[in-house]
Amino acid sequence: MKQFDFITEIPTLGKAKIKSPLRKARFVDGSSPTSLMLTSGELTELDADVLQKDFEKAGPREHIYFDAAKARCAIVTCGGICPGINDVIRAIVHEAHYHYGVRHVLGITNGLRGFIPKYGYDIRELTPDAVSHIHQFGGTILGSSRGLQDPVEIVDSLERLNINVLFVIGGDGAMRAAKSIVNEISLRKRNIAVIGIPKTIDNDINFITRSFGFDTAVEKAAEVIQCAHVEATGMDMGVGLVKLMGREAGFIAAQATLAMQEVNFLLVPEQPFALTGEGGLLQAVETRLKERKHSIIVCAEGAGQDLLGGEPERDPSGNPKLGDICGRIVSELEEYARVKNFEVNIKFIDPSYLIRSVPANASDRVYCGFLGQNAVHAAMAGKTGMVVSRLKSSMVHLPLDLVATKRRHINTSSDWWASVMEATGQRDFLK
Amino acid sequence: MKQFDFITEIPTLGKAKIKSPLRKARFVDGSSPTSLMLTSGELTELDADVLQKDFEKAGPREHIYFDAAKARCAIVTCGGICPGINDVIRAIVHEAHYHYGVRHVLGITNGLRGFIPKYGYDIRELTPDAVSHIHQFGGTILGSSRGLQDPVEIVDSLERLNINVLFVIGGDGAMRAAKSIVNEISLRKRNIAVIGIPKTIDNDINFITRSFGFDTAVEKAAEVIQCAHVEATGMDMGVGLVKLMGREAGFIAAQATLAMQEVNFLLVPEQPFALTGEGGLLQAVETRLKERKHSIIVCAEGAGQDLLGGEPERDPSGNPKLGDICGRIVSELEEYARVKNFEVNIKFIDPSYLIRSVPANASDRVYCGFLGQNAVHAAMAGKTGMVVSRLKSSMVHLPLDLVATKRRHINTSSDWWASVMEATGQRDFLK
Amino acid sequence: MKQFDFITEIPTLGKAKIKSPLRKARFVDGSSPTSLMLTSGELTELDADVLQKDFEKAGPREHIYFDAAKARCAIVTCGGICPGINDVIRAIVHEAHYHYGVRHVLGITNGLRGFIPKYGYDIRELTPDAVSHIHQFGGTILGSSRGLQDPVEIVDSLERLNINVLFVIGGDGAMRAAKSIVNEISLRKRNIAVIGIPKTIDNDINFITRSFGFDTAVEKAAEVIQCAHVEATGMDMGVGLVKLMGREAGFIAAQATLAMQEVNFLLVPEQPFALTGEGGLLQAVETRLKERKHSIIVCAEGAGQDLLGGEPERDPSGNPKLGDICGRIVSELEEYARVKNFEVNIKFIDPSYLIRSVPANASDRVYCGFLGQNAVHAAMAGKTGMVVSRLKSSMVHLPLDLVATKRRHINTSSDWWASVMEATGQRDFLK
Amino acid sequence: MKQFDFITEIPTLGKAKIKSPLRKARFVDGSSPTSLMLTSGELTELDADVLQKDFEKAGPREHIYFDAAKARCAIVTCGGICPGINDVIRAIVHEAHYHYGVRHVLGITNGLRGFIPKYGYDIRELTPDAVSHIHQFGGTILGSSRGLQDPVEIVDSLERLNINVLFVIGGDGAMRAAKSIVNEISLRKRNIAVIGIPKTIDNDINFITRSFGFDTAVEKAAEVIQCAHVEATGMDMGVGLVKLMGREAGFIAAQATLAMQEVNFLLVPEQPFALTGEGGLLQAVETRLKERKHSIIVCAEGAGQDLLGGEPERDPSGNPKLGDICGRIVSELEEYARVKNFEVNIKFIDPSYLIRSVPANASDRVYCGFLGQNAVHAAMAGKTGMVVSRLKSSMVHLPLDLVATKRRHINTSSDWWASVMEATGQRDFLK
Repeated sequence: MKQFDFITEIPTLGKAKIKSPLRKARFVDGSSPTSLMLTSGELTELDADVLQKDFEKAGPREHIYFDAAKARCAIVTCGGICPGINDVIRAIVHEAHYHYGVRHVLGITNGLRGFIPKYGYDIRELTPDAVSHIHQFGGTILGSSRGLQDPVEIVDSLERLNINVLFVIGGDGAMRAAKSIVNEISLRKRNIAVIGIPKTIDNDINFITRSFGFDTAVEKAAEVIQCAHVEATGMDMGVGLVKLMGREAGFIAAQATLAMQEVNFLLVPEQPFALTGEGGLLQAVETRLKERKHSIIVCAEGAGQDLLGGEPERDPSGNPKLGDICGRIVSELEEYARVKNFEVNIKFIDPSYLIRSVPANASDRVYCGFLGQNAVHAAMAGKTGMVVSRLKSSMVHLPLDLVATKRRHINTSSDWWASVMEATGQRDFLK
Repeated sequence: MKQFDFITEIPTLGKAKIKSPLRKARFVDGSSPTSLMLTSGELTELDADVLQKDFEKAGPREHIYFDAAKARCAIVTCGGICPGINDVIRAIVHEAHYHYGVRHVLGITNGLRGFIPKYGYDIRELTPDAVSHIHQFGGTILGSSRGLQDPVEIVDSLERLNINVLFVIGGDGAMRAAKSIVNEISLRKRNIAVIGIPKTIDNDINFITRSFGFDTAVEKAAEVIQCAHVEATGMDMGVGLVKLMGREAGFIAAQATLAMQEVNFLLVPEQPFALTGEGGLLQAVETRLKERKHSIIVCAEGAGQDLLGGEPERDPSGNPKLGDICGRIVSELEEYARVKNFEVNIKFIDPSYLIRSVPANASDRVYCGFLGQNAVHAAMAGKTGMVVSRLKSSMVHLPLDLVATKRRHINTSSDWWASVMEATGQRDFLK
Repeated sequence: MKQFDFITEIPTLGKAKIKSPLRKARFVDGSSPTSLMLTSGELTELDADVLQKDFEKAGPREHIYFDAAKARCAIVTCGGICPGINDVIRAIVHEAHYHYGVRHVLGITNGLRGFIPKYGYDIRELTPDAVSHIHQFGGTILGSSRGLQDPVEIVDSLERLNINVLFVIGGDGAMRAAKSIVNEISLRKRNIAVIGIPKTIDNDINFITRSFGFDTAVEKAAEVIQCAHVEATGMDMGVGLVKLMGREAGFIAAQATLAMQEVNFLLVPEQPFALTGEGGLLQAVETRLKERKHSIIVCAEGAGQDLLGGEPERDPSGNPKLGDICGRIVSELEEYARVKNFEVNIKFIDPSYLIRSVPANASDRVYCGFLGQNAVHAAMAGKTGMVVSRLKSSMVHLPLDLVATKRRHINTSSDWWASVMEATGQRDFLK
Repeated sequence: MKQFDFITEIPTLGKAKIKSPLRKARFVDGSSPTSLMLTSGELTELDADVLQKDFEKAGPREHIYFDAAKARCAIVTCGGICPGINDVIRAIVHEAHYHYGVRHVLGITNGLRGFIPKYGYDIRELTPDAVSHIHQFGGTILGSSRGLQDPVEIVDSLERLNINVLFVIGGDGAMRAAKSIVNEISLRKRNIAVIGIPKTIDNDINFITRSFGFDTAVEKAAEVIQCAHVEATGMDMGVGLVKLMGREAGFIAAQATLAMQEVNFLLVPEQPFALTGEGGLLQAVETRLKERKHSIIVCAEGAGQDLLGGEPERDPSGNPKLGDICGRIVSELEEYARVKNFEVNIKFIDPSYLIRSVPANASDRVYCGFLGQNAVHAAMAGKTGMVVSRLKSSMVHLPLDLVATKRRHINTSSDWWASVMEATGQRDFLK
């Protein structure tokens, strides 16, 4: 009995035709081969314990839909990079080739553009050998791009290239694009499976409790906070200010704060704060400095946008550009200190791309391996219009719509956030 | 309604007397502040989804038992080191001091010996300042020791030092020692709480789905496998043989194998294998070498003990000493290659302590922070005879007996193990 | 016979009185115990082979001036941090304590301010135990500050604290301050030795062929360039722009460029370049992008200041503030691409403090050890008004004046610079 | 005027015929483009200051001998791996291709065997693209092998493959092999240049003051010592025993000891020591343990071989196999402690291949870049029978004979060794 008003069912392309090359005895129930998973993340509004019972478990199926000997797969990577993309590519290629016997996996270069003739094609054959070392590198060996492309042109290319399965690695925009590709395929009544592997350095895709690469990014972010601590304590009245990724969700900033336990003020988009006045950040920093002679502030890039005033600029796609909250904090704090006549030495660190362009750590590598393997299992079984993901400690299939509709945010009434608040001791400041 | 025949109830020292300094509104239900947890590990025989409903959730309580202003806590670390011990110590000290106002946390040095007069006392005052940087170091700042000490002498010392709460960080032996201390306290009708924080680099404590430090150890083990891969491919007919920790359980070896996806043969204690003969390791390595010119073997130290013959030696405590399975593989493989007239260049790497003596990574740091905080919450609420632990994605209280009775092993019928087998492609060899 | 018109002689406080506790047989000639040194750096105008013959070699002396049992030493750290300061502090303390038997080494906190009463004193006793782990941390455990303090007040404090030897770790400003302290001591006819250990993350102190911390900074800078490469190749028409330290000298940027061999354009203060027009950077980037689809630019912070126009702002000390050359490159390149109608995706990375706040690597640790040891040898022998340094492969004593008078720059007619040009292939652009 | 009785002259193949594509104005004097070099190492018996005047400086020449458009180069890697081999390969390929316009650089696989028909050929075309990322990996992409091959067969292959220049990267054995190839070429009067790039993880090649990869190996070795320190201090009466590479020379062990300054006993092949009796190691460790409760011993693998007694075993090539000195120390120390009735907890760490199979650090990368570039400069100028190397701070050409004749050892009368002794405080023990 379904308990929720959203759809958890996964479309399939038709009746599976062929016996799976994988051991049916072990996997006949479709259970997950992935019970040892590494997880971080929380659900915002749903009870995941119950929820995961409603979703189809990932894993190999007894019967498969595509004839591996003839199947042609393609992989495309979209949007900004994050640690582990190459691991996912490698896992897909190895699983398809070694365990199903698929002979052709194509790499589409430069994101969805790679399907559009006017940009020029550059399709690569991804053999097991060609991908055997790529997990040692950050980024994506296929290149990427941003922006939407016409699904009609994309499906034209899929047909021209004779592709049966398309794997889309990308953010929520790419998941929406994948959905429109599924729709176009459906209109044409073609048997092409589209499987998404959601990617987001900000860890903010709906229903995805931990996106791949997040653990690695937190590791690097924690190193940056340590540097800020060294700088702040290296000068009398030193303030280390660290800007971290997180446009709409402060997960990286918060988890790195938990890891280091040295942060005094954590600013995230989900939690409004005052800069000036009684109980504002400036006053709180002053108090801290006078007591302890140094202070560490971690600020997610999307925090405090309401304080910047004015209409936000917009980028070519119409998304609002983030205002420079850290620049504002620096100038206001310096002015405040000048007026109040105390010393302040601000050391601002913006690691930006440094936390996302590194290779995945071991934990993310294991996770990316499971994502790639299960994406192939789902595709070969003829499933489509879905993503693979971890929900708490199981690997599941989620409908594309579900992950693309809205973003996930920190639940500031959660116990996890309470722990973050304890780590910083900033409850009073945020009130 | 209880579904299991073991006890999940946690003893308490009496009625809680004092209002908690922590926000009761948020924590009144005893829910966990730790839903964003990082996990790896599986349960062997129990369904954890159901199970965790039976256990008491960890977290701060509305009422506390001890008067923080007068309470004296002590921390002792036992057995071999693993990444994160100092993080747990630091979290306990900071939580007790900053959030409860406890004024004295003592560090007992050199393990349980630190309580025994004949070894000489060396008790240290652990102030927040004294522990503020210790998480940057591997090992334990308190020192450790192995072996049992008389609980009567230990409780004598606890009374003499006027200690109200004892935190025991250690392996299953230490958890059994903690249990005997609880019993002795109980006989004397003293109000001293004893809280365990289970530690095991092998990840094999019963009911503990992921022990702290495990993630870091896997990271280092994966680096070692990469080195073995470089060595093996750097020579014609190169064999990289890596020995990893795991006396009775091969979790580190298996998880590192999943992370690297370069291992051809994984040997763990839970999975018997033949060395010689048809389908034995030697023949399988020969086949691999002839096809691919190099091969990687990862061997947990406790694997294949049945192949070594004879009675095992025993250490002073009567535990069997592990036989040298890797030495045996090297000599047998060299001899086999000589007889069969093929070349083999074996590069044996035993990283031993290198994977456990490093500082914790960010993920383990977050976990250790939660362990330390929740240990203090439990203790201050007057609970005793229990351990804090993560069970799937919740922090819970488990009775000491439960974790100390037996060890956890890889479930070789699990889907996770099936994935490991897929990663190595060794199913046929192991048959 | 002296060949140069600057003074290479080192002042001493008087006749050495006491036999050295160190083996005289080995060191009686004052030869250096440091022939295995790690070096990077070039001299700009002098032939170092000849030069080092003119300088006094560092090392222990047969006779020492101060009575170790009564001597009181002090250490002060000034200016911005760089990797290895704590290693130097530790080496001084250990050498003084263990090899000479000095009982008191004081740590002056917060730089030269630590001598000035109005800031409040915070003098620490630096015992061998207190410093035994500090090399694991970046920064300086003593704290630092910028700006000059009155030498009269400083020498007042030296006298009040009864200090015989002052070690000053700092940049060229601090070396000038040290000189004025020496002068004040000399006026008062006090027997206080002042020994400088020059510190500069930019590697630009005159006569110092490789400043400590430089090797570590290059290691981190190279990692950043690798990240920029991943970002630039992860997007079609990607440009990775990395800003590195180097106000007046581009040594870090250049050496990191040699290490990575992936940089297409290297901009340093010593080498003027055009932004616009024929042969300017914008056009060169366009050409590169059209050929190879991505490009890496490394820019030292002080490069291209002439292109920014206007009068530079000045900081409170009257030093010119550096203009934002990278911001200028970004905006000009985006505008240029818009006008010329080609795509460009700029990924700007400013690691700033991240490359200087880390602990020293092994090579810098060895070097810092030698600096600290030789500083103590010189001081105990009664030398003053000098710095210890490596000159090519010897450790020498240099007069304070020599290092404080002017800064060192990249010699763009050198063969080393020619190699850097080859690494980037940018000779034509710079023309 | 020559001051030494060995030959420093470099043979050339004939008169250079073609103008160099490189800027002659800068390099016409053959001066080195490499004055900013990183160095570690000492000469044993020669005064390098004088010596380097006698050697030909490395660098591009005004005239070149080979017609780049027709030249075919080959690279072969021999013996055990060390950090930076792939960097040297990459630098050779890039220099030959981009700066000289050489079209074919061949990679010979599996060492000198790659020239011998019976092993099967596997020659690879090394294009700039094929090598562009290889510096990210440890080891050698070409594979390697040990042992001698017939120079007649090798030169047969060189002729068959139409190779003009052979680059040999390898140890002293490989340098002797290179010499015999040069002789065979000379007998046949062929115009084939042979250039060596000496490689040794032990840093013990004659006249090579710092071999590439050494700095990286020291970095890793220092990490291992830190682990041993953590283990030793984590147990009461803990002894950390670290075995490091160094068959005949203890450079890695000694330099890592200088870097960490935590080692109490350093054992190297060059310095005999007693195990038992008055002033022996066992007694010294006992004294240390009783004073400080823990102790760190670093032992180069070739140390103390005289203590093991008996005739050494020999490997197939007739080289003596090293006896297990560390095993001996462990068993003797345990027995000694048993007899003398004190506790000892020995933690033995043998990192073996872990310190040599990692990628090069930034400093070694810069060095490897210079080695590769200068090897190509020398080869294209028609030089042969020589190696490129750094001698103190210059890059020079050395005759093959010179580096192949004997091995370099630590000079235990040097000041550098005196510093090592100071770092350990073990002078009395070694007496």
